[in-house]
Amino acid sequence: MKITIIGATGMAGSALVAEALKRGHSVTALARSAEKLAQLPASPNLTTKVQDAFALTSADFATADVIIDAFATAPSLAFQHIDLATSLIAKFRETTHPRLVFILGAGSLQTGDDHHLFVNDIAKDPNAASFLRIPQSQLKELNFLRDVDNVNWVGISPSANFHPGAATPFLLGDDELLVNANQESGTSTGTMAVAILDEIEQPQHHQTRFTVADK
Amino acid sequence: MKITIIGATGMAGSALVAEALKRGHSVTALARSAEKLAQLPASPNLTTKVQDAFALTSADFATADVIIDAFATAPSLAFQHIDLATSLIAKFRETTHPRLVFILGAGSLQTGDDHHLFVNDIAKDPNAASFLRIPQSQLKELNFLRDVDNVNWVGISPSANFHPGAATPFLLGDDELLVNANQESGTSTGTMAVAILDEIEQPQHHQTRFTVADK
Repeated sequence: MKITIIGATGMAGSALVAEALKRGHSVTALARSAEKLAQLPASPNLTTKVQDAFALTSADFATADVIIDAFATAPSLAFQHIDLATSLIAKFRETTHPRLVFILGAGSLQTGDDHHLFVNDIAKDPNAASFLRIPQSQLKELNFLRDVDNVNWVGISPSANFHPGAATPFLLGDDELLVNANQESGTSTGTMAVAILDEIEQPQHHQTRFTVADK
Repeated sequence: MKITIIGATGMAGSALVAEALKRGHSVTALARSAEKLAQLPASPNLTTKVQDAFALTSADFATADVIIDAFATAPSLAFQHIDLATSLIAKFRETTHPRLVFILGAGSLQTGDDHHLFVNDIAKDPNAASFLRIPQSQLKELNFLRDVDNVNWVGISPSANFHPGAATPFLLGDDELLVNANQESGTSTGTMAVAILDEIEQPQHHQTRFTVADK
């Protein structure tokens, strides 16, 4: 398939590029930095493009089967997570093709017996003040997406500790924060990439968000 | 003040143009139809422009103090209410100027002892099937706006029966559908225009939605 990845040089994005190429897909990698794009693995199936995500037009996606929003930004610009999602959705109203995949944070997952939002736990950590606006904005992004019923979209959240690393066996869930048998809640970028490529190749979720955790 | 009105030839928009001009404001009227724009009252304070609302850029609002979204569309394109709001919000993140005023429907108001959404009552009316997507989309538009805390926005909903007519004395409320002493729930376009211009001249609401009804 033809897969366009926005934010292709980031932590999630670069793992996605590698996994998609490994599976033989044709990848268009978009990012702001030419220097970082040049560090992606060379492949005849990879096209790279320096691109402001907010200047994208429908024409930029003319051949895409799937668009993955792996955009990341500074906490002071966290609202851009929402604005990029709304701009992508607006481009594909009343269509089923391409499919849009949004990488959301763990903050919008539910946890505990009372199913409270995990972002509320994050907010209690004094060390989280510097980045809290990111999970808060990704929750708003999901709230927006949940109202979208005429675009072919799916969202995916990692578990609490999203970190660089190779894929492992994994657990899948819906809206509850997952923990493994050791009571750890983590997702490697490799696992995230495998879960997303599996979902792209064999769609199991439609207009909803699911979650993945390292087993 | 310099007021830009999107959808300036519509039922709400044309009443807003008249009221704003009457109060001496400088009005920029945007609409898709040159023919309808030509029917607006001639005034040295009125500038008209044929404009696709989805092609607007920040530069189009360079001199605006207030932008009023009075956009209306066919029920089959009801999602455009949401997409126009998200595109306007994205243009003015982290600003307090200009102020954005969104005209929302009555469907997102609450009614009854259980404070259910009025759109649920609308949905029970068999005659509403043809236009139900409009109030449903305007509810989603408000849901989106309620998550926006870094733009200077306000929303306003008419009462159940929004109809052309001159301004009357009126009632103001917050999120509950208003009825007058005769148990009628209606808002004339003239009343809507007065309530909006009052709010523009003397802001009483910030990042919230209020409602107005004919007394």
